[in-house]
Amino acid sequence: METVKSHVVHGGTLRYLKHDSATTGTPMTLSIFVPAGEGPFPLLIWLSGLTCTEDNFTTKAGAYKAAAEHGVIIVAPDTSPRGEGVADDPAYDLGQGAGFYVDATQAPWAPHFRMESYVTGELIDLIDAQFPTTKTRSIFGHSMGGHGALTLALRHPELFKSVSAFAPIASPTRCPWGEKAFTAYLGEDRAEWAKHDAALLIESGAAKGVFDDILVDQGDADSFLTDQLKPELLTAAAQKAGQGLTLRMQPGYDHSYFFMASFVDDHVAFHAKRLKA
Amino acid sequence: METVKSHVVHGGTLRYLKHDSATTGTPMTLSIFVPAGEGPFPLLIWLSGLTCTEDNFTTKAGAYKAAAEHGVIIVAPDTSPRGEGVADDPAYDLGQGAGFYVDATQAPWAPHFRMESYVTGELIDLIDAQFPTTKTRSIFGHSMGGHGALTLALRHPELFKSVSAFAPIASPTRCPWGEKAFTAYLGEDRAEWAKHDAALLIESGAAKGVFDDILVDQGDADSFLTDQLKPELLTAAAQKAGQGLTLRMQPGYDHSYFFMASFVDDHVAFHAKRLKA
Repeated sequence: METVKSHVVHGGTLRYLKHDSATTGTPMTLSIFVPAGEGPFPLLIWLSGLTCTEDNFTTKAGAYKAAAEHGVIIVAPDTSPRGEGVADDPAYDLGQGAGFYVDATQAPWAPHFRMESYVTGELIDLIDAQFPTTKTRSIFGHSMGGHGALTLALRHPELFKSVSAFAPIASPTRCPWGEKAFTAYLGEDRAEWAKHDAALLIESGAAKGVFDDILVDQGDADSFLTDQLKPELLTAAAQKAGQGLTLRMQPGYDHSYFFMASFVDDHVAFHAKRLKA
Repeated sequence: METVKSHVVHGGTLRYLKHDSATTGTPMTLSIFVPAGEGPFPLLIWLSGLTCTEDNFTTKAGAYKAAAEHGVIIVAPDTSPRGEGVADDPAYDLGQGAGFYVDATQAPWAPHFRMESYVTGELIDLIDAQFPTTKTRSIFGHSMGGHGALTLALRHPELFKSVSAFAPIASPTRCPWGEKAFTAYLGEDRAEWAKHDAALLIESGAAKGVFDDILVDQGDADSFLTDQLKPELLTAAAQKAGQGLTLRMQPGYDHSYFFMASFVDDHVAFHAKRLKA
């Protein structure tokens, strides 16, 4: 992995890294914050939303003070493969910057858009090999990345100690962003879609007995709340399945990083407690 | 003042504002964070560095949690007038984005580049008139804005309760950034320059008996440290004049907002203590 740049922040070291991914067949970029000291430290993976790179969370979320205090590594990968020769779409919600954390099965996306395998396989392996991790980890994210955190944790519960989300796409099979992306990446068969739908996975009992609680923060002034995010589908699914899930509706907050910055300390503490249990 | 956008953050309200400035003769932009509650709250003014707008501090510094806790309003203005009809220079360190917090006396800068009068006059008056301030205030900033905070406080000590800086240009009469900007904005007469040089103002006793302490944080891995910033000139001047000044050399930190984010809580607390004394 090539270090693109490096900064000291809150006593730890923040690096922007680039590496050639065998999974996506492209260069991939990420940021990683490692607290001061020798470790080993547990790993917290952040997944960003539509249009983001690894930089949005890194510069705007203000998460590293809590990460330093709790002694947690935070990794934030880019949201898709990118570059010439990688398929794209002029819309902001498909293609580069919109990988949706699934492995595409459809042309022209299939060869490179393999974000589920990248995050749950190559990325974790690389970080565990090259940084002082405890080889335990948790995952959280925002919007499309909240969907990614929930579905990757529910589909790979053996990999993660805990999961949380900010304003996640709760049920991509039932909102325009998800219907568009899943049609493009996974094809027309809705049975395939259901395997990547957080609300449906929870309802099926995927994480029952694995995650004691799932923390979800949602701003009630979020312009995407009603049409795209639908957090009520998460609470309904959790009640049906007997899955612990805490949805906090935050009054006045919108979809921006100012919302995440306001509650990120709670999420880091939520994961640190479970990573160190 | 027109509200361009508004976000809830850390329980308070963050607004991006735009207004027609009588001082600069141009539209000016700023951000303002107001804590929850009725106030009144003391005001903390942030001045940014070269190339910045009001957005850099607002999105990257992570200052609003501390501002909410201490009950302090933070205002961050743009670093210069901008737009068509406003003089500019292709270099990053002169013209738009590089106002240096002085009132230019030289063509072509003189009509619009009046950042000292704007910050110490019109901006404060507008905020005091339209927001619930205690009509007491402090000032801090970074790099060119650290120079701005120090010189505006030293030149207008009656306006401010306290002053602090991150990686300030300590003595613009003795570094390339300052020599270039002061030649352009103030002309060739170095006696005029000296009136806007923080180290020389401190040495002259300008703030003696006004500010009990001046807090300065400086990263020792800052690439501008030796040629441009020269904080040792501040400590030498303070010792000579008997001015309280605390310079903290922070090991490993660079010139980025990651450095400021790491210590901004200390600065907000430093000012809150003095604003509420």
